[in-house]
Amino acid sequence: MGKGTYTWKISKFQKDQLMETEDVVAVEYPITIHINGEEFATMVCTPLHLEELVVGFLASEGAILKRTDIASLEIDEDAGFAHVELNRSLPDLTQGNKRWIGSCCGKSRAFYFQNDAKTARTVMNHFQIKPGQCFNLMEAFHTQAEMFQKTGGVHQAALATEEGLELVFSDIGRHNALDKLYGYMLLHQLTKRNKLIIFSGRISSEVLLKISKMGIGLLLSKSAPTNLALELAEDLNITAVGFVRKERMNVYTHPERLNMEGQANNREVL
Amino acid sequence: MGKGTYTWKISKFQKDQLMETEDVVAVEYPITIHINGEEFATMVCTPLHLEELVVGFLASEGAILKRTDIASLEIDEDAGFAHVELNRSLPDLTQGNKRWIGSCCGKSRAFYFQNDAKTARTVMNHFQIKPGQCFNLMEAFHTQAEMFQKTGGVHQAALATEEGLELVFSDIGRHNALDKLYGYMLLHQLTKRNKLIIFSGRISSEVLLKISKMGIGLLLSKSAPTNLALELAEDLNITAVGFVRKERMNVYTHPERLNMEGQANNREVL
Repeated sequence: MGKGTYTWKISKFQKDQLMETEDVVAVEYPITIHINGEEFATMVCTPLHLEELVVGFLASEGAILKRTDIASLEIDEDAGFAHVELNRSLPDLTQGNKRWIGSCCGKSRAFYFQNDAKTARTVMNHFQIKPGQCFNLMEAFHTQAEMFQKTGGVHQAALATEEGLELVFSDIGRHNALDKLYGYMLLHQLTKRNKLIIFSGRISSEVLLKISKMGIGLLLSKSAPTNLALELAEDLNITAVGFVRKERMNVYTHPERLNMEGQANNREVL
Repeated sequence: MGKGTYTWKISKFQKDQLMETEDVVAVEYPITIHINGEEFATMVCTPLHLEELVVGFLASEGAILKRTDIASLEIDEDAGFAHVELNRSLPDLTQGNKRWIGSCCGKSRAFYFQNDAKTARTVMNHFQIKPGQCFNLMEAFHTQAEMFQKTGGVHQAALATEEGLELVFSDIGRHNALDKLYGYMLLHQLTKRNKLIIFSGRISSEVLLKISKMGIGLLLSKSAPTNLALELAEDLNITAVGFVRKERMNVYTHPERLNMEGQANNREVL
């Protein structure tokens, strides 16, 4: 069963029959992060890989830039607290979460938070992958994901190379699954070169911004993107691929990372 | 097409073929709410029914308790701002978003924010519905939802009585769809009596708390719940029903709102 799931007594209806039985549901666990003794944020998550989650969340929020910004990290799992001491003072993030008003005609009008406009980076990571490998990776991702799918509604994020999956994290929160990946990469100082991310959820602007902060140039999702995410992907040089299913996928931005050698190329406009 | 969607040029791969074509994607629109001249929050949403969204969001966050708390509401759609003047001063919500430490053995240990522990209400709304009606309502909900499903990944929330759907709102954000419903109910002073909510997304603690604030006693979802949501549903007297699909559904809490007259009752434990 594990920490991520919980058994609940239910009344199940099926074709006019009522049965008293049990169902396995996902655990939603609140954790409160204290930074330098101050309450910083409370979030709900799947209570696995909490250290990775906290580190990735702090990096996503701009509270840390690198692993060594953290002097100590202690997790009190029973009480649901993470106590973080930083080697630097906490930047004033409240200001950064205010609306960012860009010039109307400049780039990046898709930004809406000052922090993101400052910290999101144009991804300089160039590598190519064959479409067939994208389909293989998505299939491997689904196989891994099934292990966590007992309870329904849990999201997965994986780090991969063209050769295969390297890491898979899951969480009830879409963003948490990505933060766990980010935290792991920072804690283990993994290279971002030639890496891609596979994600079960929709490509929203927030997801896209996380990918850019992680420095990853290629995102495969089985789901749909939003227009704001695509504007950011265009600006930040990220290849956004959605609806990756069996032998089809939609490449929304920067298709130059797809290696089309040996592929039929039908440029007919539908 | 409408304001909620946007056309994007894509490269589509399908069985080794590459085609340059177009895809319709969901619009993600940032809106910043100012209350009494102060920046309050920025959120992203589907840019439809913004007035309902803002009112529902303010009520969910505890910034207003009723419609008449709002002196004026002006939406600048082009710039993405909502300017709200309240008839009362804004309560200090920053404190309320801090962790709530309840007594370990009391009720409601599932709360994790002080605001929610103060504002969530035990639902006193008692009515009964037949299982067959739940299936009919979910089918009507799906039929409605299809209209919005062109783009993938948009969530729906509907208000219904046993007789049928009354209102359906959709949004790229799960919580926004519910906030639009809440806002509409407040703006039009709809009764909560004998009403239920149908929701496309997972039943998380945050969703459950919104339902309780709206004073609704029955929630039908096509998706899964979390354990924390179920603990809250138990405490707040809400009937949480998940996985409503065709002729089956799981009743997780307070099954007394399901009218079992004339149903076969197989109490065999699986």
